Amino acid sequence: MAEPTILPLLRERRSVREYDETHELDAADLGSLLEAARWAPSAGNSQPWAFLVGRRGDAAHRSFVPLLAPSVRRWAPAASALVFTLHQVASGPEQDAPLYSDYAAYDLGQAVAQLCVQAGALGLSCHQFAAFDHAGLAELAAVPPHWSVTTGIAIGLGVVSDIAPRTRRPLTEIAYAARFGEPIAEISYAEGTHRPETDYQ
Amino acid sequence: MAEPTILPLLRERRSVREYDETHELDAADLGSLLEAARWAPSAGNSQPWAFLVGRRGDAAHRSFVPLLAPSVRRWAPAASALVFTLHQVASGPEQDAPLYSDYAAYDLGQAVAQLCVQAGALGLSCHQFAAFDHAGLAELAAVPPHWSVTTGIAIGLGVVSDIAPRTRRPLTEIAYAARFGEPIAEISYAEGTHRPETDYQ
Repeated sequence: MAEPTILPLLRERRSVREYDETHELDAADLGSLLEAARWAPSAGNSQPWAFLVGRRGDAAHRSFVPLLAPSVRRWAPAASALVFTLHQVASGPEQDAPLYSDYAAYDLGQAVAQLCVQAGALGLSCHQFAAFDHAGLAELAAVPPHWSVTTGIAIGLGVVSDIAPRTRRPLTEIAYAARFGEPIAEISYAEGTHRPETDYQ
Repeated sequence: MAEPTILPLLRERRSVREYDETHELDAADLGSLLEAARWAPSAGNSQPWAFLVGRRGDAAHRSFVPLLAPSVRRWAPAASALVFTLHQVASGPEQDAPLYSDYAAYDLGQAVAQLCVQAGALGLSCHQFAAFDHAGLAELAAVPPHWSVTTGIAIGLGVVSDIAPRTRRPLTEIAYAARFGEPIAEISYAEGTHRPETDYQ
């Protein structure tokens, strides 16, 4: 059967490891990226996300770089921006909204995915990473205790030569009918292999 | 300042509450939706997601409907498909891959967001929900203990008349520079208000 068709923006998304060090992320594009995250859905419209943003050359970026693990520090500072993501883990003292912490990490993931789709539409590449000093960032940024520092995202103009092939488990291993493991009738199961990587893909 | 521009696919996404009961989700479109989820990024390419899929009229769908809370049962069964999402919460006995449970819910959220973007590209609407019998579904579907039932997604052809205005917190409340609460220089902060809803938006 034919491969399922998906949007080029999704098909061509890559977690690149090399960025154009001359590209700058302007305020309009940064605004679009954050706006795309802002309009993500969330449980009860709880919007349990926040972002810390540094652009290469500014004070925030300079303060973020020392917090990166050596493996990330090799490539991420060359990107035009470093964005750190936070999700809410409890209701804050200032809030009257109900607590939705069961879905907060999931909803932050949705917001980040929308940010990355928007980045693709702007011709930019995102590479998420988790290897940084979470506690150090929470201290640096004075993150309130009801928020949890989650991931980092390097955003910039990717250098295409660095793009490695991506792999995924086949649909047969992730999509089932009424029982876990039971194939869905009719649908096309594309081939794929699972190759663990040391970082986001 | 001007409103930031975002992709129409993101701008026009809505969690509709009324679906065309005559629309059927064909195998090709279902394959595209799952494929979009499959290609999401994840920590270390761990791909900690799985999906249980029922289409209106099939046995899986019939078995899912009684598990919906009354508030969801009013509108979700009319959608063309009910998809339930799972994320991995521990390494399984069959796996040699490392454990990435810290990011599994977040990564599932990314996969679902990609599925919903793909739905939009197909002219379809998704409405996520959490009000269903999670334990009952885990039992029905024989979900292994290292997986956690997370959310449901109603997918179908939305009836536009039912679409309510969406609201979000302003960017000033979600996007900061190096310190939590510190505004980012230059960027355009769109207006917005936070209005909690009883369900996904």
